[in-house]
Amino acid sequence: MHLSEITHPNQLHGLSVKQLEAIAQQIREKHLDTVSTSGGHLGPGLGVVELTLALYQTLDLDHDKVIWDVGHQAYPHKLITGRYNDFASLRQKDGVAGYLKRCESKFDHFGAGHASTSISAGLGMAIARDMQGDDYKVASIIGDGALTGGMALEAINHAGHLPDTNLVVVLNDNEMSISPNVGAIPRYLNKIRLSPPMQFLSDNIEEQLKQIPFVGDSFSPELDRMKEGMKRLAMSKVGAVFEELGFTYMGPVDGHNLGELIDTFKEAHAKGGPVLVHAVTVKGKGYEIAEKDQVGYHAQSPFNLTTGKGYPSNKPTPPKYSKVFAETLIKLAEANPKIVGITAAMATGTGLDKLQAKLPDQYIDVGIAEQHAVTLAAGLACEGMRPVAAIYSTFLQRAYDQIVHDVCIQNLPVFFCLDRAGIVGADGPTHQGMYDISYLRAIPNMVVMAPKDEAELQKMIVTGIEHTEGPIAVRYPRGSGYGAPLMEEGWEALPIGKGEVLRQGDDLLLLGYGSMVYPTMQTAEILSEHGVEATVVNARFVKPLDEALIAPLAQKIKRVVTVEEGCLMGGFGSAVAESLIDRDINVPIFRLGVPDVLVDHATANESKAALGLTPSQMAEKILKRFALTQRELASMG
Amino acid sequence: MHLSEITHPNQLHGLSVKQLEAIAQQIREKHLDTVSTSGGHLGPGLGVVELTLALYQTLDLDHDKVIWDVGHQAYPHKLITGRYNDFASLRQKDGVAGYLKRCESKFDHFGAGHASTSISAGLGMAIARDMQGDDYKVASIIGDGALTGGMALEAINHAGHLPDTNLVVVLNDNEMSISPNVGAIPRYLNKIRLSPPMQFLSDNIEEQLKQIPFVGDSFSPELDRMKEGMKRLAMSKVGAVFEELGFTYMGPVDGHNLGELIDTFKEAHAKGGPVLVHAVTVKGKGYEIAEKDQVGYHAQSPFNLTTGKGYPSNKPTPPKYSKVFAETLIKLAEANPKIVGITAAMATGTGLDKLQAKLPDQYIDVGIAEQHAVTLAAGLACEGMRPVAAIYSTFLQRAYDQIVHDVCIQNLPVFFCLDRAGIVGADGPTHQGMYDISYLRAIPNMVVMAPKDEAELQKMIVTGIEHTEGPIAVRYPRGSGYGAPLMEEGWEALPIGKGEVLRQGDDLLLLGYGSMVYPTMQTAEILSEHGVEATVVNARFVKPLDEALIAPLAQKIKRVVTVEEGCLMGGFGSAVAESLIDRDINVPIFRLGVPDVLVDHATANESKAALGLTPSQMAEKILKRFALTQRELASMG
Repeated sequence: MHLSEITHPNQLHGLSVKQLEAIAQQIREKHLDTVSTSGGHLGPGLGVVELTLALYQTLDLDHDKVIWDVGHQAYPHKLITGRYNDFASLRQKDGVAGYLKRCESKFDHFGAGHASTSISAGLGMAIARDMQGDDYKVASIIGDGALTGGMALEAINHAGHLPDTNLVVVLNDNEMSISPNVGAIPRYLNKIRLSPPMQFLSDNIEEQLKQIPFVGDSFSPELDRMKEGMKRLAMSKVGAVFEELGFTYMGPVDGHNLGELIDTFKEAHAKGGPVLVHAVTVKGKGYEIAEKDQVGYHAQSPFNLTTGKGYPSNKPTPPKYSKVFAETLIKLAEANPKIVGITAAMATGTGLDKLQAKLPDQYIDVGIAEQHAVTLAAGLACEGMRPVAAIYSTFLQRAYDQIVHDVCIQNLPVFFCLDRAGIVGADGPTHQGMYDISYLRAIPNMVVMAPKDEAELQKMIVTGIEHTEGPIAVRYPRGSGYGAPLMEEGWEALPIGKGEVLRQGDDLLLLGYGSMVYPTMQTAEILSEHGVEATVVNARFVKPLDEALIAPLAQKIKRVVTVEEGCLMGGFGSAVAESLIDRDINVPIFRLGVPDVLVDHATANESKAALGLTPSQMAEKILKRFALTQRELASMG
Repeated sequence: MHLSEITHPNQLHGLSVKQLEAIAQQIREKHLDTVSTSGGHLGPGLGVVELTLALYQTLDLDHDKVIWDVGHQAYPHKLITGRYNDFASLRQKDGVAGYLKRCESKFDHFGAGHASTSISAGLGMAIARDMQGDDYKVASIIGDGALTGGMALEAINHAGHLPDTNLVVVLNDNEMSISPNVGAIPRYLNKIRLSPPMQFLSDNIEEQLKQIPFVGDSFSPELDRMKEGMKRLAMSKVGAVFEELGFTYMGPVDGHNLGELIDTFKEAHAKGGPVLVHAVTVKGKGYEIAEKDQVGYHAQSPFNLTTGKGYPSNKPTPPKYSKVFAETLIKLAEANPKIVGITAAMATGTGLDKLQAKLPDQYIDVGIAEQHAVTLAAGLACEGMRPVAAIYSTFLQRAYDQIVHDVCIQNLPVFFCLDRAGIVGADGPTHQGMYDISYLRAIPNMVVMAPKDEAELQKMIVTGIEHTEGPIAVRYPRGSGYGAPLMEEGWEALPIGKGEVLRQGDDLLLLGYGSMVYPTMQTAEILSEHGVEATVVNARFVKPLDEALIAPLAQKIKRVVTVEEGCLMGGFGSAVAESLIDRDINVPIFRLGVPDVLVDHATANESKAALGLTPSQMAEKILKRFALTQRELASMG
């Protein structure tokens, strides 16, 4: 049987280990082919090929449930659940998603994109099963990195307390998050891996006992009890943490040995109650280049399979926002030892790996633990440090309460740097940075800003560091800047709450925020071609909003357009509307941004076009909206 | 020395255990006196009197840092840090806060109100210390209930990985959250408590070995190795989970034995690295009635110290919203076995203890673990159950990402019941339910509603249960309803997204949301006395907003007032403004609600008066605002 013939995972049932190994090989080839062509996540999927095949040998996926954490390691799952033929469309508009989606396949039992959710979701399904008298199996897969996320630990605390609720947790231990793991739990797992296997240890103790003079041949009840006690103690050492927390621990098992995996999974399902199977895998397994550079090959743009190298770009691209952020921060941190950069397991993504390399003492990676990251930052701020929490917009959602309760209520000077704010492209709905403007500006004491380009980002980093009166946040988009000349000197902070006028015109007032300022300028140029002259303001701050600048302009020009890359509900346009109506300036306001929908995976430009956010689309909508209004006004006049 | 003479905790230094015991007695008396008179948290503080005194014997609080988790057990701390004389003002307006506040005392090193934050904050301070070459001690106190919160576990994962960062975590193990604890971690702690103490166990093994025939007198190297190995194994059993996670475990220690506590804390500070001191305490210690009913005496309204009974109310009060919620849910759950109520350690607060008593199989307490609660609910919803997540507005902030990522993106029918939405009174800023309208309405697929009274809450519970197309949330206030007659039959759901007109008038359109609908009606009556006739709409839904009802009324009446008990930034008024301006209805809108400030502790009525949200204040503001506008309109006409 060839992989392409598998459209239902139950077709794997009954295949021999040898046959499965052949399928595994085909999965790796297809996986590598596709990712090297389209880009996507490489290492995570390659590491779980055998784990997936073995697990699915022991499950009936028409009934049993499998919940993948994060979902970026689910490409093998996708290839054997009916998405082989479409796989070349991976992460492309209308193509196969890069993560799991319930609406994409009936075998995607729970969607994912963020880490640490699978045990909670699986436990919910297991409880639902028992409440409804059903009998399906539930398996939650989680990585060792994701296991340090607090939510996963909350779920273990709960599941371990339910001895009659059957749930198999498969710990995919590849010793990595995207970067090497941080924390005591990964170190503990490492210790287990390096320990002699459980069985060996307990056997050995019996041997050791026998070798004690005069003991070997005696058969006293005391000695039997002793032996029993010692065995129990020794066995409980391996996986003791999980055992103490109510789980049956099985492992460590070689995550690339199909036979061993199948036997272990069978045993795990038969055992009952909460069971943790500890599978040791190699990220990037089977592709030597990825095995050797597990950070670099976590996810990839298209690359040459033989060399592992990416393709040279035809045109030079401006630096990425992440890079500008990191390099600016490093310059400031070199001059100010109080500055400390904090990441939650996203060192490369945020650019903080550069800070780590340059100033390791001013860098903290807390692992996948956004909540802890934020309150840790609050603690640092209490004692006079200048913590910079660099967390993607979408992941900062994890720490919302910490932002409110630990930072803003106490008005502590934590600087939040939100990368990937707005439309993120191929990662899709789970990763869109849509809500941060709404959820941050509602909190007292918070300052919220966004730069129009990478040069302004530099200034905002300076602004954030120098703002010691309370919390402050900057949001910036995924990807490259505009090529704006970067500051080499004159590192001055921007005045808090002050925008800037970029263009003058009497017909319209266009207020752009962050990444949409340049497109707003382009929109103004198109409008100008239609004889409509717009004033364009770069708002810079959504909180505090530059009301002193905006209100008089709105009152004078009487037609306001707001443009943002974020949800319209409660967003920047909403803030402008609030400000104007509070001042009884009741002029037409046209809000452009992301409406109340989920934005699917596609390129960022495709998404913007689909949302009507290209300059030409925006110009057209603006003309339409205000032409209508002018007619109405004329008829009312 | 009498307690009243202690204004600085360092005055405790050098006191004998006997003297400290006397102080402890005085703290208990003052504590009981105050709480029985003013109301407040009773059991938690009584349980940590000795722990506080002993810890402060070993710290210099001018330099060393102490971080209390939640803060409701910090009354003893307050009594010895300069707040003895003001203590009668506990939880009253302008009085001593019920939780910790950095702005209240220089000894409140980190504010708290929510659980599970203290280890993160303490670790931040410890890292700041080491980065700055300082040498203060840091002690974080955390309860066994709060330890199950994911954030605390994230912090342990991080701290346990930093062997050179001195941090003492004091685990205040009273075997309780507000209710008895849930989960494998508390069960594990219980097991430790019931085990023979470490020292005894290891001694005993040696004894046991000696009793083996022919072994007792032999001195072979094998036997010595064996003994050593067995001792190590046995010792590591107690506290193994913490030891494996990188902490030095000390305990369990009797949390009411001052001498033992002082010795242990001294040893803990001397040890270095991350140390966990496991102190076993009794919630309500020293007040027998509270010791016997630890749930009932967690927090109390004023009561008679001798009998432990509360005072009868002079007037019969309408039922509390929580009670109406619980009783309505029970009726529905009796008829529908798919319904399952979920609480995160707030069984009594949410009223779900009643569901537990009546239908224990349809009730889940996950412990202090809001993130897990929400994704567990998502898992339940996937498999056809009707999960009802009953979580206070302020605590649901903890699960924001789970609401977005696991529930709304997948459009799963989870029903969120947000108690304590709006102003919460004596609990103060950490507990205000201010942000939920803003943070929930920004998320696609979410329906958000709020009832005008307890009878409408009943209907909304029905609505939430019957809404199986996706997620839905209802927010309702702390405290009692209005005495609206409750439904006995006719349990029909409300139409989603439909408001109702409660009053007709041509001069003003007043749009009330949830708890502010009745005050809005009263405001309309006052306005009527001034000759201004208002139409009053009960919006019911902020999402979807009843635009078909509101837009024509706004266009016709041309003066809109919105009234809500929540933050104005992005809130209900903002939603109304968005809707009207999107339809090019540019009429004056006056938004009443909570401005961009933190609301301090006081009674809810005092807070509302301070915010200008009483009916007479609102009427006055409305008259002022629109008189001005009318003048302007007249001058423009």
